[in-house]
Amino acid sequence: MQTQPLAGVTVLDFGQVYNGPYCGFLLAQAGARVIKVESLIGETLRARGEKASSTFPFSFLNTNKQSITLNIKSADGQALLKRMVRDVDVVFENFAPGTMDKYGIGAEALRAENPRLIYASSTGYGNAPGPYRDYLGMDITLQAMAGVMSITGEEGGPPLKTAAAFADFIAGTHLYAGIVSALFARAQSGEGATVDISMQDCVLPTLATALGSYYVADQQQPQRGGNRHPGRALAPYNVYSAADGHVAIICIREGHWRKLSEAMGNPSAAEDPRFATMADRAANMDATDALVNSWTSERTRAEITEIMQHHGVICAPVNDLNDVVNDPHLAARGTIEKRPHPTLGEIAQIHTPLRYRDIDPPALTDPPKLGAATADILAEFAGVDDAELKRLRDNGVV
Amino acid sequence: MQTQPLAGVTVLDFGQVYNGPYCGFLLAQAGARVIKVESLIGETLRARGEKASSTFPFSFLNTNKQSITLNIKSADGQALLKRMVRDVDVVFENFAPGTMDKYGIGAEALRAENPRLIYASSTGYGNAPGPYRDYLGMDITLQAMAGVMSITGEEGGPPLKTAAAFADFIAGTHLYAGIVSALFARAQSGEGATVDISMQDCVLPTLATALGSYYVADQQQPQRGGNRHPGRALAPYNVYSAADGHVAIICIREGHWRKLSEAMGNPSAAEDPRFATMADRAANMDATDALVNSWTSERTRAEITEIMQHHGVICAPVNDLNDVVNDPHLAARGTIEKRPHPTLGEIAQIHTPLRYRDIDPPALTDPPKLGAATADILAEFAGVDDAELKRLRDNGVV
Repeated sequence: MQTQPLAGVTVLDFGQVYNGPYCGFLLAQAGARVIKVESLIGETLRARGEKASSTFPFSFLNTNKQSITLNIKSADGQALLKRMVRDVDVVFENFAPGTMDKYGIGAEALRAENPRLIYASSTGYGNAPGPYRDYLGMDITLQAMAGVMSITGEEGGPPLKTAAAFADFIAGTHLYAGIVSALFARAQSGEGATVDISMQDCVLPTLATALGSYYVADQQQPQRGGNRHPGRALAPYNVYSAADGHVAIICIREGHWRKLSEAMGNPSAAEDPRFATMADRAANMDATDALVNSWTSERTRAEITEIMQHHGVICAPVNDLNDVVNDPHLAARGTIEKRPHPTLGEIAQIHTPLRYRDIDPPALTDPPKLGAATADILAEFAGVDDAELKRLRDNGVV
Repeated sequence: MQTQPLAGVTVLDFGQVYNGPYCGFLLAQAGARVIKVESLIGETLRARGEKASSTFPFSFLNTNKQSITLNIKSADGQALLKRMVRDVDVVFENFAPGTMDKYGIGAEALRAENPRLIYASSTGYGNAPGPYRDYLGMDITLQAMAGVMSITGEEGGPPLKTAAAFADFIAGTHLYAGIVSALFARAQSGEGATVDISMQDCVLPTLATALGSYYVADQQQPQRGGNRHPGRALAPYNVYSAADGHVAIICIREGHWRKLSEAMGNPSAAEDPRFATMADRAANMDATDALVNSWTSERTRAEITEIMQHHGVICAPVNDLNDVVNDPHLAARGTIEKRPHPTLGEIAQIHTPLRYRDIDPPALTDPPKLGAATADILAEFAGVDDAELKRLRDNGVV
């Protein structure tokens, strides 16, 4: 592959917050031309300010995009969009359900202008009929609805979210996947498509381990267990104390326990009848964990990780955010690139996870200023001249 | 779109456990012909048994696939694979790093047999050079290494995993996305590609909210906060008690709080000076949460959810696994289909999240028996006749 895989593809990105913008990020980093279409005050994340907790996410999600403003609530804005889509390949959005249809610019209306168009959306519960279709959904409420909170948390404690916004990001990844699948199909058929991604659908498969425990236990919910195995069937399998924090260690086969015992310099542990088999260790889980913890707690995360990897034990340090943004492996892979930011100082900008041996990811550009490309894009895609642009600006359309 | 988007694409799926098999699941449900290539005892999940906690995940991840056995440690197995790849479009795997190269059947060797081939892999840390490249990685250790555990957990408590295996599934989704992007590029260029997906890369973007808080706080790690907002900047934003469990409610704009106050039949709450602005409510977070909790705790999850959605408040019930497998919306969308299973009874089989308005997902088939298609596939792709097949079986190659 000599060029970026999506070179030549043009996209209108109506993404908000994480889900849609991450799809646009993946498209832009794969070589598509991504035009971010924003309201006159900017999309939700941008509108929260130039030094807010939303500033860093906005910055990394919107590299390599152009920005235009467009008031889709105005009839002129809707008409402009219909002119533009005749020359684009993809329109996607993650507004509340029905927003684009309400303004007369939903999938059917836009595909009528361009039968090759791929129109894609992602909402909490999808656009197909169903009782939750019109529900508002965000990452946290999807973690609740989709069952994730019910299985996460301390033993005896309440249900808990994960602080990683994975429902948003796994949906944005599926949104990208659905779009590129439709582009591939169009290359054969010439026909466009309407892609419909539900965050709830995307989260469901991640319950695999928990649902596995549920079904083998005759449909009983597994109890929350902190960092232990959901079915309490594997040990050691936990987060252990280190001299400078914590490490995660899991043994999923008998061989892992023998290797761990050797790594701890305690090969006789593997012979102790309390620890002889996986079933024995699971039955003596507290004693098993205590044995491991007594060894790990006297060593640093780095020492433990190096010894464990050397012995073929599955182990990792529990890294904090400072560790992550300075991670030597993410730097070596070119996944993180330190770049100056106008209000945050030096930040860890992120390159795409979609990587190819034969081609480097594109050089990052700064996220665009709001509407920086409005005049150029409207001229190119809708033949808007200076006089019309002035009228559109005066009327609050762009 | 009249046919499935990947109709006509042929794939050899060397996937193990979740990451690779989920990629193969998405490919098969998108219409590709997916041939699951397994060792003579079956891939890791299958090999754990017919009624184990791995049985349900194996069942839903391997629908609509064919299965063959192939001993890739044998010279004859390696030679057979090289014959087969001349007629396939995609080979993917998620073995430990370097496994396929060790057997002489890595990306370069297979692409030499077929320059149009797309070879894709996903490992914990990717195949590009870097200090962790050869580390073993699994979902739990990636949650540790990539920073997710450090931000998840109760206030004052230890770092915590989420029990959703999202690191595996988000990597599998990226693996699919990388493969289909390469297929699209090949449709223009005729050239294959080598796709390299690192689970660590895929998890990194999900830290968006936490990294946003980290950077705006001059690179200070946000404290773990249970179900509260990481930066403690938004309230109400929590999980609250219901008469029959819990609900999640988040207010991210001032209007949400007014709507929530109305929904609770307590519009004057919005005027109380402790709760007047988001900053006031964040400063009085315990009192704000107590006010909401006193209302929710007297109502069921269903009552609360209905009232909140009616008022435009972002809310969802904390569903358990029994709720999820019987979810009426997942049933209405056709995402869950109840099907009989030989050892588990009736189970919730899962359809693809990649959905198109113009086309239904394919009918599900049962997961294949180990090696059920070995004879047919070897005849079709490598011209193996009965005599050669007998020799291969006798020698433990298939």
